Amino acid sequence: MTPEELAKAYTVNGEQPFTDAVQRKYKKNSNLCSIGEVEHNVYFVVSGIVEAGMIANKEDKIIEFVFPNEFTSSFSSLLSQQPSDVYLTCLTDCEIQIITFSKLREDSKTSLAASQFYIQSIEKAYLQRAKREKDFLTLSAEERYLKLVETRPEVIQQIPVFRIAKYLGIHPDSLSRIRKTKFTNG
Amino acid sequence: MTPEELAKAYTVNGEQPFTDAVQRKYKKNSNLCSIGEVEHNVYFVVSGIVEAGMIANKEDKIIEFVFPNEFTSSFSSLLSQQPSDVYLTCLTDCEIQIITFSKLREDSKTSLAASQFYIQSIEKAYLQRAKREKDFLTLSAEERYLKLVETRPEVIQQIPVFRIAKYLGIHPDSLSRIRKTKFTNG
Repeated sequence: MTPEELAKAYTVNGEQPFTDAVQRKYKKNSNLCSIGEVEHNVYFVVSGIVEAGMIANKEDKIIEFVFPNEFTSSFSSLLSQQPSDVYLTCLTDCEIQIITFSKLREDSKTSLAASQFYIQSIEKAYLQRAKREKDFLTLSAEERYLKLVETRPEVIQQIPVFRIAKYLGIHPDSLSRIRKTKFTNG
Repeated sequence: MTPEELAKAYTVNGEQPFTDAVQRKYKKNSNLCSIGEVEHNVYFVVSGIVEAGMIANKEDKIIEFVFPNEFTSSFSSLLSQQPSDVYLTCLTDCEIQIITFSKLREDSKTSLAASQFYIQSIEKAYLQRAKREKDFLTLSAEERYLKLVETRPEVIQQIPVFRIAKYLGIHPDSLSRIRKTKFTNG
């Protein structure tokens, strides 16, 4: 998606709520947001993969992988302006569009276009999170893995197996067993 | 909270985005929203406790208990207008204020007060869900139980133990052990 297409995506009823998104390149392992930092931005992934996670009992728990054409942020920190519980790390080299949230939030108080754009964004973020929670509550690790393969076949190639296992909350050996069972005759 | 206080809570910058909330009484075990139904409302609990859950592998999973002065809805169904994966059931006799969502959403397109109210509501819903997901990822069943006791001591009295155990995802016997260990000398 080019910056022009992106600008178009931001348009609501022909009006552009904000135009100050900046595109930056990040090296693999760069942090977009660190734990303890207050989040100020929304990130739109142009290329690469971002990993979102948190630390529990000194271990990192992977919450999600974010792919091109998807938005991400440490939304709870962004909305509450409290230190982030979540880290956002570039799993690969990435190109990211950075949107300053405070401007959008301010604009939404005086512009219906901005408020509609903001409402759409937060609705999307909410639905994404609800879907993730539903999968977590209702699917087995194997089912979550198959869903990931189906919706995001590129994950398999670009994300180290031990990080996928961590995302699924299982041991890498269990993931190997699932992969072997499902794909050797496939 | 009286209906007057409630109306005040809905006011944004002195303007009331909508005034068509209707208060109804529900008997214990009534459904506010059933699985498979499309959700059209947001519910404000005036009195009583509502349970939200979903069915996975023919078993119900309890997502949350909703208490007086809290909002709830099958938000994913509400936002997507797809059939609900979630049920909302009155665990006790309840008094509920029902807010028609379509009106609020329509109003938010033409009124900044309505859009600000809607933004505040959905931000709150998002933060609530994020908090729940964080607890689920980072706390043990015992820690989640203690947190529930601390923030909502009334839960212990009014919710059957087996439903609390189901909410925590543990066997009722394990919950009894936790309660015994923590509270016999407390």
